[in-house]
Amino acid sequence: MKYCFGVDIGGTTVKLGVFEEEGKNIDKWEIPTYTENEGARILPDIAASIKAKMEERGIAKDDVIGVGVGVPAPVTAEGVVNGTANLGWKYKEVKKEMEELTGLSAVIGNDANVAALGEMWQGGGKGQKNMVMITLGTGVGSGFIVNGKLIVGEHGAGGEGGHVTVDYDETDCCGCGNKGCLEQYASATGIVRLAKKKLAVTDKATVLNAETVTAKDVWDAVKAGDEVAIEVAEQFGKYLGSGLAIMAAVADPAIFVIGGGVSKAGEVLLSYVEKNYRERAFFAHKNAEFALAALGNDAGIIGAAKLALDNQ
Amino acid sequence: MKYCFGVDIGGTTVKLGVFEEEGKNIDKWEIPTYTENEGARILPDIAASIKAKMEERGIAKDDVIGVGVGVPAPVTAEGVVNGTANLGWKYKEVKKEMEELTGLSAVIGNDANVAALGEMWQGGGKGQKNMVMITLGTGVGSGFIVNGKLIVGEHGAGGEGGHVTVDYDETDCCGCGNKGCLEQYASATGIVRLAKKKLAVTDKATVLNAETVTAKDVWDAVKAGDEVAIEVAEQFGKYLGSGLAIMAAVADPAIFVIGGGVSKAGEVLLSYVEKNYRERAFFAHKNAEFALAALGNDAGIIGAAKLALDNQ
Repeated sequence: MKYCFGVDIGGTTVKLGVFEEEGKNIDKWEIPTYTENEGARILPDIAASIKAKMEERGIAKDDVIGVGVGVPAPVTAEGVVNGTANLGWKYKEVKKEMEELTGLSAVIGNDANVAALGEMWQGGGKGQKNMVMITLGTGVGSGFIVNGKLIVGEHGAGGEGGHVTVDYDETDCCGCGNKGCLEQYASATGIVRLAKKKLAVTDKATVLNAETVTAKDVWDAVKAGDEVAIEVAEQFGKYLGSGLAIMAAVADPAIFVIGGGVSKAGEVLLSYVEKNYRERAFFAHKNAEFALAALGNDAGIIGAAKLALDNQ
Repeated sequence: MKYCFGVDIGGTTVKLGVFEEEGKNIDKWEIPTYTENEGARILPDIAASIKAKMEERGIAKDDVIGVGVGVPAPVTAEGVVNGTANLGWKYKEVKKEMEELTGLSAVIGNDANVAALGEMWQGGGKGQKNMVMITLGTGVGSGFIVNGKLIVGEHGAGGEGGHVTVDYDETDCCGCGNKGCLEQYASATGIVRLAKKKLAVTDKATVLNAETVTAKDVWDAVKAGDEVAIEVAEQFGKYLGSGLAIMAAVADPAIFVIGGGVSKAGEVLLSYVEKNYRERAFFAHKNAEFALAALGNDAGIIGAAKLALDNQ
């Protein structure tokens, strides 16, 4: 039996998993992420944890195909990171260091891209080769897969779907410094922003409270038939549908997989997005499917394992 | 010596070329495209022309690596076309038919994508692996290359960069049926449209004539310092710069290569696009390079030859 490791590095914990070659996860665990001293301990801690697990399970080095690692930052095709927001790393040759520390073959990818690979392998996009995954959380992340391979890009910054412009009249700034990015409307914070703007001008009765409204409140109210919440969902759907139509113009996916905290609203969310997508998409792209992400927090380790397997 | 053939099918002529393995073109010629009877003659004519050329030059079948073919329509990864605007073809298994007719290995691609591959191999994007090519002609075509491979897409309709939305307030329809597509502003006809709109409302003196204005007139006037033409060029640059920023958010290219009839305006055109691109692009993508296409009408056969070589 051959094995591989999937590693998903986050700002507070690192998730790890051992997988059998055909994809079965046989063990998973977490270790803390220590970001002090420019995150110097992170990779050595991961390597030690992998070695300990190999010993515990009696896995020989020759039986390990490799280690896949997802990192919350752009990662070049060579496995190099040029800085991270949450790990303390500046320029770091992650692949090289990981291979030296473990003696195993390593492949490094951006965490959103790696999660997309996971969802295509075992989740919402199972069986597909051309997929766009959108993660609606605090921000909007995305991963593009064409013909089974991730779009990594020249600077490791391919698949930044949260930063396609969907409103050229926007006056507020996105976190990235531009104006009108999809992230300003389709993230959890974006939905709250849309709701607050709507609540400031509407006269209609609503359960939403402008002081405390959350993205979850909006979707709960949509499900309860709240008219104001439904107007916010329409706006959200228009923006996300337009953004996905743009992405399809480039990537022509078979399926969009939607994940992240906001996607817990479920099928109702898809209905607003799909309707608007089909109105705006180029004719050849109108029939793309839509699905919710299925792997939750495990998408990262599963995708990282796939990254290692694909690299054989 | 090993050889390959590059074929570029157009609505009136088919261009063909023989290439040595390392890329040198040793012969090129054209045959007419007969579109009658749903284009039934097109592939047999091409096959006969290739066989005649092999006989003429004494090239043995075993010395031919393959035939690459560019088609003016979406082409699936399996080499299937589901209809064409200009060739008469409906559903057609182009790869299969081509291989049966020639006895040679064949690879089929969309013509704009294939031209992009040619420009990356021997033209404006030489030496790059991540490139977006935009062709500004009657419409706006594009081809996306990531890590050396074309984005083909699920329906063979990847890289439709002319149909990303860059103006959500547009009231006129694009040829595709949507409103606000890049093609409505950055194609030759789009530039004429922008110029006519501007001429209808401006009081400024200008050499441009609203009845007869062409895209070339606009760029010639820009070079001569015509104030109204410069305003049109600014609009063009804003739209194309915005469109390319969107494309970069997905594909993160090292370089944009701009070709097609409109690009004959030269470096002055790039200046308007670059300035606006750098204002709108996501920070990780701002430093992408810009170049003019270098291969002209030969990009198709050169890219088709490369397609055949990459398929070995």
